[in-house]
Amino acid sequence: MQKEGTDIVFVPSDDEMYPPGFVSWVGVEKVTERLEGASRPGHFRGVATVVAKLFNIVQPTSAYFGQKDAQQVAVIRRMVADLNMGIEIVVVPTMRESDGLAMSSRNIYLNPEERRAATILFKALTLAQRLWWSGEGDAEKIRRQMAALIREEHLAQIDYVSIADAETLEELDLLDRPALASLAVKIGKARLIDNMPLK
Amino acid sequence: MQKEGTDIVFVPSDDEMYPPGFVSWVGVEKVTERLEGASRPGHFRGVATVVAKLFNIVQPTSAYFGQKDAQQVAVIRRMVADLNMGIEIVVVPTMRESDGLAMSSRNIYLNPEERRAATILFKALTLAQRLWWSGEGDAEKIRRQMAALIREEHLAQIDYVSIADAETLEELDLLDRPALASLAVKIGKARLIDNMPLK
Repeated sequence: MQKEGTDIVFVPSDDEMYPPGFVSWVGVEKVTERLEGASRPGHFRGVATVVAKLFNIVQPTSAYFGQKDAQQVAVIRRMVADLNMGIEIVVVPTMRESDGLAMSSRNIYLNPEERRAATILFKALTLAQRLWWSGEGDAEKIRRQMAALIREEHLAQIDYVSIADAETLEELDLLDRPALASLAVKIGKARLIDNMPLK
Repeated sequence: MQKEGTDIVFVPSDDEMYPPGFVSWVGVEKVTERLEGASRPGHFRGVATVVAKLFNIVQPTSAYFGQKDAQQVAVIRRMVADLNMGIEIVVVPTMRESDGLAMSSRNIYLNPEERRAATILFKALTLAQRLWWSGEGDAEKIRRQMAALIREEHLAQIDYVSIADAETLEELDLLDRPALASLAVKIGKARLIDNMPLK
């Protein structure tokens, strides 16, 4: 704790958070149904509920979440606005290895060859960003070029490649508003996710 | 407001509470599935959500709800406990006419004959209370006697007669814990509800 510059860490047990008879849930529709939500049904209901509980217990003025889990940020922002929680949500940039790979506890599942292949996620995202910077406004063209690049890496298997509205995460046709480029790619047994705001 | 001894009344519009893009809901399972919840799907999801929003906006130390809507009280108590809202829920006794009929905006739909017949709800509840006071511990026997009494009133049509756990609203076999006697009865076009704690 001292090493991290932290005064207090609150680590409640499951039993404390979900005692017998627990039956209340916070559900966020729409933004939870896509991307990560599509492959993990119920996941964001659990996230929204536990975050609502922690907000009520801690009563923070601001709360910090990582950009790496961009959909989680979108869900929590939506919940805070819809339920009038009055908490500032601050997004912390994704930490990356020197070759661009987003830091993640899942990276330990990669063998050396897979670890090298895993850089394809960052490469695809920077490609998206470059295309967008250069004025490309057709989201499908960007998705297609990202997918083509990833397919050149034979250890990579695409789960999804998305160019979506940054707030609702609805897939975009035109890049006419703040957007999020995101992807999920399987490298060996590890399913990796990463994203980059286009705004 | 002054007449009621109230300093502030907060009456937000629908548009203010549910702006475009609103997609977050608080759902309480189990206790919402019985009694009123069974005949009004989604009703308690709306109640829990708007109460959660009002709690976040107003940030009260205590909130007051009428005993008349006993299931609503049970749902809100469950939500407050499960989501760590830290708000004291105070129950206000049901206001009754001199003949026992619970005051309700729906009572205006009763013609004079129906108005007289409507006292059957209070009579059935006081019968339940008398049986319980006299030591009757078999919930089904009490339900049967209440139903028999109500059927003597030919203008009354039973929707449900319940002797349930006061907290979870699960129907009881034995009266071995705090219970709630409740009923919904149609008198003419009006569907009336009432209840009495057995504790």
